Amino acid sequence: MVAAVAANCVIGVDIGGTKMAVGVVDESLGVLHRIQQASDGEDATELLDRLTAMVDEAIEAAPGEVLGVGFGVAGILDAKTGMIAASPHLPLVGVPFEALMGERLGVPVAVDNDGNTSMLAEWLHGAAKGASDAVMLTVGTGIGGGIVANGELVRGSSGGGAEFGHMVVDQDGERCSCGGVGHYEWYASGDAIGRAGQLAAVEHPDSALAEAAAAGREITGSLVTEFGHDGDAASVEAIVKVGQRLGQGMVSIANIFNPQLIVVGGGAIAAGDLLLDPAREIVEREALASLGTNVSVVPAQFGADAGVIGAAVLALEQPAAA
Amino acid sequence: MVAAVAANCVIGVDIGGTKMAVGVVDESLGVLHRIQQASDGEDATELLDRLTAMVDEAIEAAPGEVLGVGFGVAGILDAKTGMIAASPHLPLVGVPFEALMGERLGVPVAVDNDGNTSMLAEWLHGAAKGASDAVMLTVGTGIGGGIVANGELVRGSSGGGAEFGHMVVDQDGERCSCGGVGHYEWYASGDAIGRAGQLAAVEHPDSALAEAAAAGREITGSLVTEFGHDGDAASVEAIVKVGQRLGQGMVSIANIFNPQLIVVGGGAIAAGDLLLDPAREIVEREALASLGTNVSVVPAQFGADAGVIGAAVLALEQPAAA
Repeated sequence: MVAAVAANCVIGVDIGGTKMAVGVVDESLGVLHRIQQASDGEDATELLDRLTAMVDEAIEAAPGEVLGVGFGVAGILDAKTGMIAASPHLPLVGVPFEALMGERLGVPVAVDNDGNTSMLAEWLHGAAKGASDAVMLTVGTGIGGGIVANGELVRGSSGGGAEFGHMVVDQDGERCSCGGVGHYEWYASGDAIGRAGQLAAVEHPDSALAEAAAAGREITGSLVTEFGHDGDAASVEAIVKVGQRLGQGMVSIANIFNPQLIVVGGGAIAAGDLLLDPAREIVEREALASLGTNVSVVPAQFGADAGVIGAAVLALEQPAAA
Repeated sequence: MVAAVAANCVIGVDIGGTKMAVGVVDESLGVLHRIQQASDGEDATELLDRLTAMVDEAIEAAPGEVLGVGFGVAGILDAKTGMIAASPHLPLVGVPFEALMGERLGVPVAVDNDGNTSMLAEWLHGAAKGASDAVMLTVGTGIGGGIVANGELVRGSSGGGAEFGHMVVDQDGERCSCGGVGHYEWYASGDAIGRAGQLAAVEHPDSALAEAAAAGREITGSLVTEFGHDGDAASVEAIVKVGQRLGQGMVSIANIFNPQLIVVGGGAIAAGDLLLDPAREIVEREALASLGTNVSVVPAQFGADAGVIGAAVLALEQPAAA
């Protein structure tokens, strides 16, 4: 037997609103070791303590030198202050996350919004490889995003942009959890698929959805997607409606960014073309001439490990880790 | 008397939907000579003939060497094909404009969308000077725009982006002239001020607007703006409503681009803070934390000559003219 060569690697950390995932990732983006925990209910100190323990465990498990740790955080970073400026689901607002984790871990640390890390991974290694202009939508509980323009990642003046979930798509519409009105993620997220499914269950009493609701099951986006793939017409109808709403926001994105690609990731992409085909139809029909026809709407390449891989790519791209 | 030194200059050409303006512009952006004509009613050949004659006249009138000619066109350019891909008001769709005008004029020619040229002028020499991230909205008959991100002008993959007027802001709303649904320019343009004024004239029969309507005057955005500045409450109300709609679109822009500045130009900026203050209030209240507070909404620096100066700056920035 030939002895295994200890490869260099990085740690990728995906901090979502409901779970935290840590992975040891090698330079060819293989995930060698995974640790996952729920992320709800703690305060900032407790969260940082648990993150530190998880990352330390991953560093121990790594087969070679750990070049750095990347974090993708479900929140808005403010590059000017080094703080997390907003995060709907995490107790990290006002926390100088990068500085604190750098001190605790003693290895190079990089932090970015999780939409930006997903865009980075898809652009450098995935579905948007080689694009000069691309937009990523991470469609899950809400809608996050990332932007590549002129062959560069665009984060905005203080690092907080690409919040596509908070585009106004219905100016007299529903109040968003952020306080705004009529935002894209209310109408076109994974949660929106769940809500459309609840409505469809009422409208179609003979559907699998209605049966599930009657049996006391919660009608979530995942369940609607599962039934949709099994051919339940009411579920398909719900997904198509949300796909059309998703497409309307993509019309804005095509008309503003004129991208080669709109890459769709996040949990909702489990619905696949049931979701994307109605979106594509709207984009082809309603984006401006030459903009709608020049853009492709494609699923993200990285699946369940997208968050961890995105954070790992961030760490690999840091000058300190080079 | 000291003999005047013949300064280098460029020709800036603004081709709008209703008028064409040509100016001789020196390197400090002074407009030395102006020619203006209506642009409606002709076919492509006739339009190119008239443009050529106007530019030749301007070259004759120039006091020094003409380094190049810049064109800002109200239309979507396709950099891949060199054609104008779309233009709602000009007979130039499918015309290889840059190639044809370059042949005819025999001097270096540069062509861009008029929103992009306005952004370029404001960014290099005007209200957005020094910004790394800025968005320009040219609010007139419709809404055009331009983008600076990461310290570069962003035109998209085929040069046709920044069409902010065609963001979907009302997903079940009015059909746009482009074929889309619920686009920003229907609700927040200079024409929208005119439409809001027509409504206000009916709702407030004792207003200056109602009097003007009764006297058979057309209620346009300009007239509503004039009455608003004179203190007519119904006109002010109409402008405030449109300013709030303008602000809702800016919420999307702040959340997506996280810019330091949103620069507002175009004819509607004649309304000044009557229009911008309601927009600013919405942005401060509804953009995401740290994004709404980090952005300033400011009027464009270049006024009536903005189109000509923007096109001139494009010509000055061309490598061929350096």
